[in-house]
Amino acid sequence: MAQLLSEELISLIRTLIREKKQESVTKLLDEMRAADVADLIEHLDQNERLCIFELLKPEGAGEVLLEMEPPVQERILSDLDNQAITEIIQTLDSDDAADLVGDLPDERARAIIETVGENTSKDLRKLLPYPEDSAGGIMALEYVAVNAESTNQEAIETIRQKRKEVENVYYVFVVDDNRRLSGVVSLKDLLLEPPYRKVKEIMNSQVVSAYVYNDQEEVARLVKKYDLVSIPVVDEHHRLVGRITHDDIIDVFEEEVDEDIALMAGVINQEIAEDSPIKISRARLPWLIVGLFGGILAALVIHQFEASIEKVVALSFFFPVIMAMGGNTGTQAATVAVRGLATGDISVMSIGRRIWMELKVALINGVICGILLSIIVGMWLSSVVLGSVVGVAMIIVILTSGLVGASVPLMLKKLDIDPALATGPFVTTSNDIISLLIYLTLVTLTFMV
Amino acid sequence: MAQLLSEELISLIRTLIREKKQESVTKLLDEMRAADVADLIEHLDQNERLCIFELLKPEGAGEVLLEMEPPVQERILSDLDNQAITEIIQTLDSDDAADLVGDLPDERARAIIETVGENTSKDLRKLLPYPEDSAGGIMALEYVAVNAESTNQEAIETIRQKRKEVENVYYVFVVDDNRRLSGVVSLKDLLLEPPYRKVKEIMNSQVVSAYVYNDQEEVARLVKKYDLVSIPVVDEHHRLVGRITHDDIIDVFEEEVDEDIALMAGVINQEIAEDSPIKISRARLPWLIVGLFGGILAALVIHQFEASIEKVVALSFFFPVIMAMGGNTGTQAATVAVRGLATGDISVMSIGRRIWMELKVALINGVICGILLSIIVGMWLSSVVLGSVVGVAMIIVILTSGLVGASVPLMLKKLDIDPALATGPFVTTSNDIISLLIYLTLVTLTFMV
Repeated sequence: MAQLLSEELISLIRTLIREKKQESVTKLLDEMRAADVADLIEHLDQNERLCIFELLKPEGAGEVLLEMEPPVQERILSDLDNQAITEIIQTLDSDDAADLVGDLPDERARAIIETVGENTSKDLRKLLPYPEDSAGGIMALEYVAVNAESTNQEAIETIRQKRKEVENVYYVFVVDDNRRLSGVVSLKDLLLEPPYRKVKEIMNSQVVSAYVYNDQEEVARLVKKYDLVSIPVVDEHHRLVGRITHDDIIDVFEEEVDEDIALMAGVINQEIAEDSPIKISRARLPWLIVGLFGGILAALVIHQFEASIEKVVALSFFFPVIMAMGGNTGTQAATVAVRGLATGDISVMSIGRRIWMELKVALINGVICGILLSIIVGMWLSSVVLGSVVGVAMIIVILTSGLVGASVPLMLKKLDIDPALATGPFVTTSNDIISLLIYLTLVTLTFMV
Repeated sequence: MAQLLSEELISLIRTLIREKKQESVTKLLDEMRAADVADLIEHLDQNERLCIFELLKPEGAGEVLLEMEPPVQERILSDLDNQAITEIIQTLDSDDAADLVGDLPDERARAIIETVGENTSKDLRKLLPYPEDSAGGIMALEYVAVNAESTNQEAIETIRQKRKEVENVYYVFVVDDNRRLSGVVSLKDLLLEPPYRKVKEIMNSQVVSAYVYNDQEEVARLVKKYDLVSIPVVDEHHRLVGRITHDDIIDVFEEEVDEDIALMAGVINQEIAEDSPIKISRARLPWLIVGLFGGILAALVIHQFEASIEKVVALSFFFPVIMAMGGNTGTQAATVAVRGLATGDISVMSIGRRIWMELKVALINGVICGILLSIIVGMWLSSVVLGSVVGVAMIIVILTSGLVGASVPLMLKKLDIDPALATGPFVTTSNDIISLLIYLTLVTLTFMV
């Protein structure tokens, strides 16, 4: 089992740093994995973090840096000098190096690309132009590829030559004379088939690949769908240009979920690791302001019906229940649609079916909740008329909110806007206003006419 | 690139089925990958699905079945006879076989375990007792393990013997004489190191493993943290009992996200693939009923303040904005806490810091929104008093909702209840009621005293 980070370990390290016992700290760090050191660092303050960082060798420091949450990483990088960053970059795989350099301020990035040595600098120049969330943006240039005409023995020799450079090899990619991807061969088959056989005879030519400008989410879905451990990346001429491995794909899945959740609630990605309340507040404020103005719009709507409320004050009792039901129904419908779009389970073909299903569900739930509410209200206020009209309003509100909740994400998708936005305050606020309008119109028609 | 499922392909297959051209359908299916056939089947109706299924060979049928969404899988299994299921089960890896049998009704499961042949039946009896969401519940018995004293050559021979049984091998697990896990060796090292070397000399003994009763979410986090491609599973004596691979881990991540999202909105997992509106409605109704009774509670609260509203009807205008802001703030705080708990970024150590941060953020946002609202209300209704009191209520409401939103998930976690429940209607409804109570008390104190 992995060593778990404990409160004792943290306070031990803190004490050792305070007492300047660098040697003991180094000894403790040497026994830890990079991911655990990163965890530890996240629990320390900036000065302690830098102390730890100075004790790590460049390779170790690089690995630790990669495992940290982005806000912590950013803060540490901003306190390291260019020399230290250059040394770290040189130890990293090309994809990680490009990510790190890509996140630096332009000027620092340029300075580092110039000092980092020819090979790394060439890799960086190749990778940096790709959009961050494309296959090109997450691929690495470290992979093993052989010509289809090579023998197994030659393939094994190629792996040996790249042994240091490519740490994890599970498949060898096979290319033709123009470097076009023509197949893959597993290490297992290389190991078990005779050395003189040609790679093209044992390779699997039905290879799934990603196009370098594919969105990372699409790539992740391909990997998941076909249970791949790594996926080769090709350019527009189907020439092999890179490789994306399973661990990067898991990161993509988490990132996409984080992004969706952040968008749903109007919070920032990785908010947990952020320690400036001003930054968090600034990120959350837009959602609150939308709610605020939506609420004022709702106030204006109610204002229009002031006369009805003056006549029957009890009408105002049911604002919360009407809004809550509209909100919940809308959120349920929107959540299912957003998740379905994210996992690819809702396709263009099934949009009509999806909305039809939501309407059927809303009708059932609307009738049940409507009847329940009308009985409760009717008995409580001893008014069959008020009970009935509140119940009918509830049915219409649930039907409308279900429709709005299900269609807004689909519409956003068509407009190429992230549908996760729909589960945020926009749909809830619109549903609040629409629901109040339906309810107040209905009760006014009943009591005023 | 993988062949994408198109509307044309679906209607072509439909026509061919209608015209009973089985041979042409078989030819089309042969060219498709299992995951694509599963996708296709999900777009057909039950009769068409069964037609396709009859054309697949047992191995193909098994793979296709595994790739389908659970509700579709369940419906197909319910229409297949025991004989057909038995044949399919025999072609599957142990973990998939156990999943499939585990989902069958008890009686059918027993019948199939008895007819499935000795080896498979033994595997099933080993795996079925583990909880579905434990390491044991998702591990497979197909892996390659060798004794630490073996030579590389012997290890390669073991892989050869298990070539058929274990399709994907990236690492060979190394055990001692008591089958206790003592290391791993990568295929790359086996391939590159001389055949006479002993496995224990080249193995990595710092191996990360999962305990068989670990929760699948914990296992997935280990795999993500240490970028593993597969993780060995051990029993209480540290004896090797199984293996979990990267593709299962991706499924766990999706499953956990699906579960959280389902819990947040009160919808069912995999609702998209469900085609009974009754089932969907039944799943969503509890959330709506919570909202309904919460709303009625809110109505009772307002009822208590009837006199105030009769005096100043305008007070009722601001119910929506007060509730919306309480709701949004609570959801933001709860979402960050739930996600942080799910990814492990919030640990027991940081709970106090988390709540303190939420309070600071709520104070900033509360003051900004409170001032904004008091200016708007004050100007609109030309009443400085009403404006100020609404603004002050807003500040208190945002502070309270932030606190409730941040602490409820942490409390649920302590009580071992899934914290995702907190982002559902419970927190929203409680915040609605608390917010109204704060607002109405404050305005009543101002206008009635």
